[in-house]
Amino acid sequence: MTLTVARAETPQTQARTLRTVRIALAGCGVVGGELVRLIHRQAGAIAASHGVRLEIASVLVRDVARPRAVPIPASVFTADAGRFLECDADVVVEAIGGVTPADRIARAALGRGASLVTANKALLAECGEELRQLARTRGGKLEFEAAVGGGIPVVRALRRSLRNAPVRSVQAILNGTSNYILTRIEQGTSYAAALVDAQHRGYAEADPSRDLNGTDSADKLRVLAWLAYGVAPGDLAVTCHGLLPDPEALVRTAAALGKCVRLVATCERTESGELRASVAPQLVARDSVFARTVDEQNVVVVDFGWSQPIVLSGPGAGGLPTASALLGDVLCC
Amino acid sequence: MTLTVARAETPQTQARTLRTVRIALAGCGVVGGELVRLIHRQAGAIAASHGVRLEIASVLVRDVARPRAVPIPASVFTADAGRFLECDADVVVEAIGGVTPADRIARAALGRGASLVTANKALLAECGEELRQLARTRGGKLEFEAAVGGGIPVVRALRRSLRNAPVRSVQAILNGTSNYILTRIEQGTSYAAALVDAQHRGYAEADPSRDLNGTDSADKLRVLAWLAYGVAPGDLAVTCHGLLPDPEALVRTAAALGKCVRLVATCERTESGELRASVAPQLVARDSVFARTVDEQNVVVVDFGWSQPIVLSGPGAGGLPTASALLGDVLCC
Repeated sequence: MTLTVARAETPQTQARTLRTVRIALAGCGVVGGELVRLIHRQAGAIAASHGVRLEIASVLVRDVARPRAVPIPASVFTADAGRFLECDADVVVEAIGGVTPADRIARAALGRGASLVTANKALLAECGEELRQLARTRGGKLEFEAAVGGGIPVVRALRRSLRNAPVRSVQAILNGTSNYILTRIEQGTSYAAALVDAQHRGYAEADPSRDLNGTDSADKLRVLAWLAYGVAPGDLAVTCHGLLPDPEALVRTAAALGKCVRLVATCERTESGELRASVAPQLVARDSVFARTVDEQNVVVVDFGWSQPIVLSGPGAGGLPTASALLGDVLCC
Repeated sequence: MTLTVARAETPQTQARTLRTVRIALAGCGVVGGELVRLIHRQAGAIAASHGVRLEIASVLVRDVARPRAVPIPASVFTADAGRFLECDADVVVEAIGGVTPADRIARAALGRGASLVTANKALLAECGEELRQLARTRGGKLEFEAAVGGGIPVVRALRRSLRNAPVRSVQAILNGTSNYILTRIEQGTSYAAALVDAQHRGYAEADPSRDLNGTDSADKLRVLAWLAYGVAPGDLAVTCHGLLPDPEALVRTAAALGKCVRLVATCERTESGELRASVAPQLVARDSVFARTVDEQNVVVVDFGWSQPIVLSGPGAGGLPTASALLGDVLCC
């Protein structure tokens, strides 16, 4: 699965024997459900370009009885984490979020040499380095493109393409929900209405306080700093201020000064060589890359000291972009 | 070399036995020379994070007598392509540009099972699909992050992270020299002076007519379309108009209409399912992502039909960004 340029227009290779890759999926919400549908929809293209058939062998959910619009048989679902962990899948996809029981699933998967694909920034911020070591010693892979920036390919960019260029600073808008709320308030919507709207659209975390108080951004910043500077996510101190208690007041204050406000995560190396990391609402010029980042969009600006920084932007939330990132990871395992 | 988060702050692992990876480098100009210096400068970090020592075993140049500011012994240089090809390097890095003799070097390297890292869009546009097949059958890797967008990690993004999301359209500014010239003319510099400046800065190809007549952009568009749509680069028809004969007139016309002009490469699937590809000067709004792409910057906008496109921008030319992309590729081989 290394050289893979082929997409739709590649000659079909049905004659080729397909290798089956068994997937165990933890979580079947907005992102997990979209991944199942995407795998179903793309089965032909994946077979043609990778010679692979993806089989969803087990799906861990809280309530097996809940109806779900996904094309897999009911027998595949389980609410029993023990039974889920016994599944001998090649790749475990963790899409439940939160540290517990995601950490148990991740350790069990990597511990038996399977690969782990996760969108879980909280998990990586807490024990990413331990999981990395576990993957390295047991031979599985740990992939997490979807954990930061939704559909924006920032993780692989920092892990692979840009990994040997020393990073001066990372500045980013990393939380789609809070950015959506700020830009909706700028357009005249109330905070309360904007939050409900973000939740309806599936952008907000189950507990939106993590979006709004900066914790989600801080977790993602820890992951980016891990990739950019090699510092274990749990070892990075992040000064964290969110939008609370009054996002509307932040927007009003910024507007009075002819500016916009954005929740910006920053990590940079100081002249003394230390890393300084923070998440905080910042006043930004109206023509800046941050002000132009609207709705649930995310942006990551990485300064290598080149003539210009690398800027990556795109949808930072939403089922399909995030599921696409998960699928890309599965096919890299 | 799969799980590699570590950078500077990782504990040094000198005790670990280093694996030597032998590199044969074709070309030691702006990009090749920068790669040699980068490998020298980053040797400690590469050893610590990858357990690898990169050894430059052979360097193919036109004139071995020419003094070069690179930290490798003169005995490593050769002007004899035959002798260069006999070097049993693990990875051949091709940084000479142009189709011939790069094609011979590429085929020889991949043909004997070595990996090929190339920044050569003209080569890939001509015979990328053949090289891909050769790599697949002989077991080497073909990596080319530096071939499109300089330091922008767009190739790996489309090959890996975003590969299973069906692409609606790609729109991009892909030639740093022509963009540099357009934006300098906007600022009042003459075309002639801007071209000389671009050449002095090392942005322009050896023959700048490829930059200015759109051919370089068309080659890169073929590579992007290969990744985005699976169409072999040689099979894509690209309608191509450059900035010539009069870039100053283009800028004047745009300014008279309150717009900017940019050389935009586009590939999209029409409603009938065909691919339509072009390179042409386009009038763009002054607040558009294209107008904001200035100097030697490049930008790639990929529309997947998500709420927002993925936008990747950064330095599209220059020795260090391009060499960093080559080094990232070497370490993925």
